[in-house]
Amino acid sequence: MPRMTPLSSNGGLLYESLAARLAEAIDTGRVKAGERLPSVRTLSRQYGVSISTAVQAYRHLEDKRVIEARPKSGYFAAPPRPALPEPRESKPPQSARYVQTSPLFVEYFSLLDRQDIIPLGALRPDPSLLPTQKLATLLGTTARRYPELSASYSASAGTERLRRTIARRALDYGCSFDAGDVVITDGCVDALNLCLRAVARPGDTIALESPTYFTMLQMIESLGMKAFEIPTNPRTGLSLEALEFATRKKGTVRALMITPSFTNPTGALMPDANRKALAELCEKRGIPIIEDDVYSDTWFGEARPLPIKAWDRTGNVLLCSSFSKTVAPGFRVGWAVAGRYREAVSVLKRIGSIFTPPIPQLALCEFMETGGFDHHLRRLRQGLAGRQQQLAHLVAETFPEGTRVSRPTGGYVTWVELPNRVDAVELFRRARDENILLAPGPLFTTTGRFRNAMRLNYGTLWSRATEQAIARVGRMAAAF
Amino acid sequence: MPRMTPLSSNGGLLYESLAARLAEAIDTGRVKAGERLPSVRTLSRQYGVSISTAVQAYRHLEDKRVIEARPKSGYFAAPPRPALPEPRESKPPQSARYVQTSPLFVEYFSLLDRQDIIPLGALRPDPSLLPTQKLATLLGTTARRYPELSASYSASAGTERLRRTIARRALDYGCSFDAGDVVITDGCVDALNLCLRAVARPGDTIALESPTYFTMLQMIESLGMKAFEIPTNPRTGLSLEALEFATRKKGTVRALMITPSFTNPTGALMPDANRKALAELCEKRGIPIIEDDVYSDTWFGEARPLPIKAWDRTGNVLLCSSFSKTVAPGFRVGWAVAGRYREAVSVLKRIGSIFTPPIPQLALCEFMETGGFDHHLRRLRQGLAGRQQQLAHLVAETFPEGTRVSRPTGGYVTWVELPNRVDAVELFRRARDENILLAPGPLFTTTGRFRNAMRLNYGTLWSRATEQAIARVGRMAAAF
Repeated sequence: MPRMTPLSSNGGLLYESLAARLAEAIDTGRVKAGERLPSVRTLSRQYGVSISTAVQAYRHLEDKRVIEARPKSGYFAAPPRPALPEPRESKPPQSARYVQTSPLFVEYFSLLDRQDIIPLGALRPDPSLLPTQKLATLLGTTARRYPELSASYSASAGTERLRRTIARRALDYGCSFDAGDVVITDGCVDALNLCLRAVARPGDTIALESPTYFTMLQMIESLGMKAFEIPTNPRTGLSLEALEFATRKKGTVRALMITPSFTNPTGALMPDANRKALAELCEKRGIPIIEDDVYSDTWFGEARPLPIKAWDRTGNVLLCSSFSKTVAPGFRVGWAVAGRYREAVSVLKRIGSIFTPPIPQLALCEFMETGGFDHHLRRLRQGLAGRQQQLAHLVAETFPEGTRVSRPTGGYVTWVELPNRVDAVELFRRARDENILLAPGPLFTTTGRFRNAMRLNYGTLWSRATEQAIARVGRMAAAF
Repeated sequence: MPRMTPLSSNGGLLYESLAARLAEAIDTGRVKAGERLPSVRTLSRQYGVSISTAVQAYRHLEDKRVIEARPKSGYFAAPPRPALPEPRESKPPQSARYVQTSPLFVEYFSLLDRQDIIPLGALRPDPSLLPTQKLATLLGTTARRYPELSASYSASAGTERLRRTIARRALDYGCSFDAGDVVITDGCVDALNLCLRAVARPGDTIALESPTYFTMLQMIESLGMKAFEIPTNPRTGLSLEALEFATRKKGTVRALMITPSFTNPTGALMPDANRKALAELCEKRGIPIIEDDVYSDTWFGEARPLPIKAWDRTGNVLLCSSFSKTVAPGFRVGWAVAGRYREAVSVLKRIGSIFTPPIPQLALCEFMETGGFDHHLRRLRQGLAGRQQQLAHLVAETFPEGTRVSRPTGGYVTWVELPNRVDAVELFRRARDENILLAPGPLFTTTGRFRNAMRLNYGTLWSRATEQAIARVGRMAAAF
């Protein structure tokens, strides 16, 4: 096994870091399946950790079934279990319809804030993956450094310093815009609302992926607009052919809302070629693209995906994002770079809530400027990638035959298609009675489909209880 | 002059507190106009302050023309200057219309965030009236006490503790509701938007005071609704007779948005009898009332006005308020108590921005629970009342004959009706060229009226420069 760079605990426990390093070596094939791992003593010397830390790391990996202990022989990389097949591309009906959110939403949301429930279905980051202590300190120092900000009205577009920082970082992912193009919002959902209201009117039709983020459907409903769900592949995202067909008649579709990177709920990643073609198609047909880029920084692959905005030449793409999936959901700081619609978004922001509080914005600037951000993102990605593997293994082991599961390469969630006989809404209710929250498929559409599917979140608080809950859901599904 | 309770500086300068106490005695008639005031020596002894503090207090009041120095005779309460007449009740056309905000808005808002402008027209509190240092400290201690809150998703309705505190305080102003009835929002404007969307649809007509808060007009415009401006008296607020007439045909008016206490821009205060009658009329006619209660805590009179909500028996009143005009505009924390529409507002809150950040909510709880809040409000009201007087005196002295001015008994703003020949929009532009921001009348209507009127804010940063700017505007107006 090759010697690797020195180990640092990165704020977590040392044995966890060591285990993550070993798991990565196995996942990437540097250590082959079935290959023998160094002895505990060798491992301890190689990484400069105590014997007990080395033992703890191996036990942890054994629990996760990444390695196997063979009596008297030592530890070996576990043979890969056969991965489950991926879900198939969705085939929604080819028409726009007014959204009627079902009573299922009320059921789902009434459970979401319960403290005693294991939120397997909810898209919420595990706080232990986020830099909570550091942010608390930065919020305090920022508040005391700028006391006048609590007593003042600020500009509706947001804090200049944060807007500059966002514009500067965007160069790294192929987008060139000025601080003046950025409007700071109350999280990404506020940005999506403002952009939607800037480009469309009641009665207009909005194209979306299918399945799609349910809050987008509810926004569309609340604004009296119609949803047009477009076939979507759980690996490559929105079907361009289907969108091209749906928009062939001018005026049918007013705008597109899309999450091309690690979309919620499937985790699909749209290839670059498709992004470029999509930007061109929508520009040609006069369809603004509202792009939700909120998961892009949580990639597990080789590089951060470029947003569709990177191929936008005319200001037709409205890029929306936030810090809620990377740093601080509790701060509610997001942004919109709305291209041609910048002025309209800025006015709507003022009419909607005057401005987003400036103190958290400046605390985030501090966090990004003092170099903690990129380091933190590496840790977050490592944590999410490891859990994605664990979830995939657990589902493969405990879910009934015929289950299909998406293979996200970033983000928080995976899409599970159960055998046809399983009713995911009924499964959701049975799981609820055991204090487990699932997110059944019909939440993610206005068509009533995906009755045998559900979203699972591997980025949630991860513990022995989480793993037991996943296995329990697998057994409950098998009982249908 | 009667002996009064001991003097405390209340966090300000001692001479200012003494001056405020003396001014109050004159304003309330305990010291009559023309009556001689105690000698400096007597005053110093009576209040236990130094001679130089007593002298400073008298000079300050002399500068403000509250008292007069007569050589060799001492100080005397100044004779009251004749107050200017009040503006007349508005007479808008009796029809609903789609709102078309004028280019004047762009001009106004492009100036609002300029640092070098004296914001006479803007409704923004002077930060020195607010407890900035204390809030900065509380925000820091709260962030460190609850670090997990930065990394978590919270309930859409807001922090339970703040909702309880709001419900408890509401008992003091005649409203009985539970914590569960409160939805925390991103300031009052967010609350108004959510309530408006909960009760009305695009195409619906919303009744409003005339003149009215321009952001309400812009909300209505952005949602594709129509505005129906109702005649409004600058002293007693909305005309009930006019509303009764406008709503005689069922379905003409879908909802009413109103600020019954110290309304923006006139400062009018609706009498209790009218509130009761209004609550009954709207209930009978099935017209929900969206009540903006954001200025009620800044009363100068004998007691806080009761909101219309206090007369609501059926959940027909949606009460909206915030801490932005009393404590911390920069925190963006408001609330809605939406009666029958509570569930709809809560869902719209989640769809709109998921939740309002919890750390500032808890910092406000700390501020309210440690007893600083009521003490602070007393100081704020005292400060605003004194400035209202000063502004009224300055306008009476420096504005052209024929000027009328409202006499608010709370809040931040007063409404000035200039002689007919004065074009307030042109005055706004001339003042802008001298770095003074005014808010001309046509901003507050969708009918183009109020061409010779404007809003002035006495709650803004008050200094010699502010006073000079007011006098300068008076001279500019006289030049028409």
